[in-house]
Amino acid sequence: MKVRFAAALVGATLPLAAFAQTGQDLLNDGKTPGDVLTYGMGMSQQRYSPATQIDRNTVKRLVPAWSYSMADNRGLEAQPLIKDGVIYLTDHEKTVAVDALTGKEIWKAMIEYAPETTRVVCCGIVNRGGALFDGKFYRTTLDAQVIALDIKTGKEVWRTKSSDPKDGYSMTVAPLVANGIVIAGVSGAEFGVRGYLEGYDAQTGKQLWRTYTIPAPGEPGSETWAGSSLTHGGGSTWVTGSYDPELDLVFWGIGNPAPWNPLNRRGDNLHTNSIVAFSPKTGKPAWFYQMTPNDPFDYDGVNELIQAELTIDGMQRKVIMQANRNGFLYVIERATGKPLAVNPFVKVTWADRIDLATGRPVWSDETKMIVEKGGKARIYPALQGGKNWAPMSFNPTTGLLYINTLDFGMDYETLPAEQVADLKPGQPHYGVNRPGAYDPDQRGYLRAVDPLTGKSKWSIPFKSPNICGTLVTGGGLVFTGMMTGEFLAVDSDTGKILWQFQTPSGVVGQPVTWEKDGKQYVTVTSGIGGVYAMKSGDPNLVHVPAGGTLWNFKLFEEYAPQRTSSVQ
Amino acid sequence: MKVRFAAALVGATLPLAAFAQTGQDLLNDGKTPGDVLTYGMGMSQQRYSPATQIDRNTVKRLVPAWSYSMADNRGLEAQPLIKDGVIYLTDHEKTVAVDALTGKEIWKAMIEYAPETTRVVCCGIVNRGGALFDGKFYRTTLDAQVIALDIKTGKEVWRTKSSDPKDGYSMTVAPLVANGIVIAGVSGAEFGVRGYLEGYDAQTGKQLWRTYTIPAPGEPGSETWAGSSLTHGGGSTWVTGSYDPELDLVFWGIGNPAPWNPLNRRGDNLHTNSIVAFSPKTGKPAWFYQMTPNDPFDYDGVNELIQAELTIDGMQRKVIMQANRNGFLYVIERATGKPLAVNPFVKVTWADRIDLATGRPVWSDETKMIVEKGGKARIYPALQGGKNWAPMSFNPTTGLLYINTLDFGMDYETLPAEQVADLKPGQPHYGVNRPGAYDPDQRGYLRAVDPLTGKSKWSIPFKSPNICGTLVTGGGLVFTGMMTGEFLAVDSDTGKILWQFQTPSGVVGQPVTWEKDGKQYVTVTSGIGGVYAMKSGDPNLVHVPAGGTLWNFKLFEEYAPQRTSSVQ
Repeated sequence: MKVRFAAALVGATLPLAAFAQTGQDLLNDGKTPGDVLTYGMGMSQQRYSPATQIDRNTVKRLVPAWSYSMADNRGLEAQPLIKDGVIYLTDHEKTVAVDALTGKEIWKAMIEYAPETTRVVCCGIVNRGGALFDGKFYRTTLDAQVIALDIKTGKEVWRTKSSDPKDGYSMTVAPLVANGIVIAGVSGAEFGVRGYLEGYDAQTGKQLWRTYTIPAPGEPGSETWAGSSLTHGGGSTWVTGSYDPELDLVFWGIGNPAPWNPLNRRGDNLHTNSIVAFSPKTGKPAWFYQMTPNDPFDYDGVNELIQAELTIDGMQRKVIMQANRNGFLYVIERATGKPLAVNPFVKVTWADRIDLATGRPVWSDETKMIVEKGGKARIYPALQGGKNWAPMSFNPTTGLLYINTLDFGMDYETLPAEQVADLKPGQPHYGVNRPGAYDPDQRGYLRAVDPLTGKSKWSIPFKSPNICGTLVTGGGLVFTGMMTGEFLAVDSDTGKILWQFQTPSGVVGQPVTWEKDGKQYVTVTSGIGGVYAMKSGDPNLVHVPAGGTLWNFKLFEEYAPQRTSSVQ
Repeated sequence: MKVRFAAALVGATLPLAAFAQTGQDLLNDGKTPGDVLTYGMGMSQQRYSPATQIDRNTVKRLVPAWSYSMADNRGLEAQPLIKDGVIYLTDHEKTVAVDALTGKEIWKAMIEYAPETTRVVCCGIVNRGGALFDGKFYRTTLDAQVIALDIKTGKEVWRTKSSDPKDGYSMTVAPLVANGIVIAGVSGAEFGVRGYLEGYDAQTGKQLWRTYTIPAPGEPGSETWAGSSLTHGGGSTWVTGSYDPELDLVFWGIGNPAPWNPLNRRGDNLHTNSIVAFSPKTGKPAWFYQMTPNDPFDYDGVNELIQAELTIDGMQRKVIMQANRNGFLYVIERATGKPLAVNPFVKVTWADRIDLATGRPVWSDETKMIVEKGGKARIYPALQGGKNWAPMSFNPTTGLLYINTLDFGMDYETLPAEQVADLKPGQPHYGVNRPGAYDPDQRGYLRAVDPLTGKSKWSIPFKSPNICGTLVTGGGLVFTGMMTGEFLAVDSDTGKILWQFQTPSGVVGQPVTWEKDGKQYVTVTSGIGGVYAMKSGDPNLVHVPAGGTLWNFKLFEEYAPQRTSSVQ
């Protein structure tokens, strides 16, 4: 099967007028340190802040400014958004607005879903955040609804049901607002969904379009699926894409095929484990690029897509970068989907390399054996990936990516094909023995990686991997968190840990930084959860308590009494 | 009914040999700032530390050292205990041991109880702490059991069932170890229990004695109860008493009669709303003193009993001090139970005064009307008391008590006697219309009170009362917490708020301070709960989230990287 490079959309006029004021704000988010309006801290999702007040020298004076309780024991993976001095945060059961300077709750909006919803959530009862636009806060719910809340009151403005959890669908993704459209994806490949992306009218919640990630029987691409396997083929879309307003294209990762066992779905299984570029107004794809055809290893291709301009062979190229679960780091031309550089960033044994001419992997003998007849092999990386969902960051001034990697393999074994022949949507779609992690002393690293070579400029080891986003700043710091609760600041040039603070639970969220009244703040959640915490059996995590809290840090200053009366 | 002053036990030999090493440690706890081995920070329960590193000047540099999640949304009222660099903390469902310098969990021991247990808990699913002795940690459970855990491992050493929750009994009290005996009390007056105190063998958990707080029919004192009312008469013992090793007497508060409605239980209702002094080895009472005979107002007499030596009329007197829910501050001679000074510390309208000669209150007209024929009246203080359960502190160098007071009244109304005639143990014992709090702008104060006059040297107002212990230090600071989450340090001479930090939830615990390696730390819990949070309807608390965390604070110092490798 040939990789498809659809024609690029060129010369698209940037329709700024359609955005109203806050649309322009979203486009500028990466350049306005006073707020954090978008997932990824800017349309390019670089998670880079030019702020320098907290730097390599001053960070040793970083202290908590306040903490706020989310009153829940599920994992906190959501990125906080910050606008006009208010922090907005989600978890699986609520959305809150908190005063950014005092930590006081402004409103809390609870979400109810049927308890049986959790039956179709494989990997953590979580939510990854929201989107701000036009006076509303948009988010998804575990039972596959998209809702809009008034940002002043938390009152629900609209609610649209996307799918039914009984069919295996759930939603944890932070929506993306692109060209005024609210875009959301679904989870559920482990329960045999047919994945899709959807666009919603931001004012009314009306569904404007739905684009499936997997063809219907008879459609182009259906020939890449054996038998009727495509009817429950997975391809979920559970990590937020990024938007290029010049091309008017959204880039979004598409996840693994279902079931994991590949024996009944021979073929490339388009468009699983792919990237799609599409128009936000219509959902119409401009191009697809598939990273892992016929994937047996749950190498979910959903990882975030950071936009940057890189010099490659002397030419300035507008690219997206993805550190894929499959262990390869992809640098892809935004306009065309053409891979420009693809190199491993961790140990990889499932493929020898990626052929740049075709864009396809060259399978190792172990993978050939598994996809052709099934069997057992030790494979790197493990199914949690060389990197899991937690987003990396990119420093445009140094050209380096900051990635929390997972550095262990797995002993993988397929079940016989006939045992997984009659799976129905809504049932678990695995079909493999639970892979045992091959267990080194150091299961993860924080790495500064050259996107064009995959090589680490530096890497620092951790007993347990960090399933936490990274944030890089103009102050020369990388912020990230550990599963054991430490929130860290690392020298972005050397990897030396310059500062840490022990939070109440594991840190598996997405740190952000922002400024107000001349002071820089760093905000992060604490609250262990997610797939690694649930399923790894990592002995290092036995004594990490659950419990969700939101934290704001600032440089130390002596306390100055703020009120003449003690009456609040 | 005459107040009974039993003969004092005089000349008792201090049986130190029986304690083994840790028994002596308990007696010295108030003088050893490196640990906190006892409820109240010393046998006298003064909650005073001579530590001066954190003082009026340096406190502005106080910052969090770490935080640890209790992974639970119930209120955290327990006092932390600290020994050999380990903090021990309880909640209703678990006991934890946490490294005092790093905040890392060492062990966690879960407690299971039948969900229906909570049916007989009126006022918060909480626990107030444990006791350390002889290598074990002793605590009570909500379903009325007393357990001992190995302090090194958290493994259960023994477990003794005290009573059955179906009869209305529960336990939240921190046990007291006195003269080697583990002493515990019960809750349940709101469910018609017959209250008692019990002594347990510290090594085996064998029950050594039980002393009921209410006589059996026919016993002396039974004539103070009309009809059969004493069979479900209440008199619970849910706040930890204090121990005088010289007299070898334990002083313990006894709570309100049941039901609240007084019409079917005419008489003094001995020994409800009383203090009992008893021998820890035998449980045999030396004296009783009743503060509120025939109480209709839930003026639960359980409040803590601080020991001190005060100069009264030129004479040095060994006293206990109690700021009673009924609004009077009692100074009582330890050896005899004789009241030496009794004065209101908040607005009181249920009684005009306490007659020192008899020790009895002089009822106001409203109270006379209510106890004689029932009815409706506005009464001060409200049934939450002029002070609730949260312990006050005493500075022996200034002679002042630091009390969080509740400064509001109630509109109280009895139900007709015949409506509350057939109550059975295990049923709710109220018999009054839910009293509406009379609602001033400032519902509570933190006060520095002269124990001999009840007058405040200073008082600072709060919109909502602080249901939180106070801690006073040689550095001139009073530490306490607010229901809205602020942890505060106040100048003990002026009441000026010198420092505060916003914790994740409401602070309703018991702050302590301790030293290690030349540094002073302050430890407190955050996690709203308890009766005021549950039942007050206070609009000021609407936006206070639940969620339990343990906090350790220290003076700011720049972070110094602690490890050469980042592998933990």
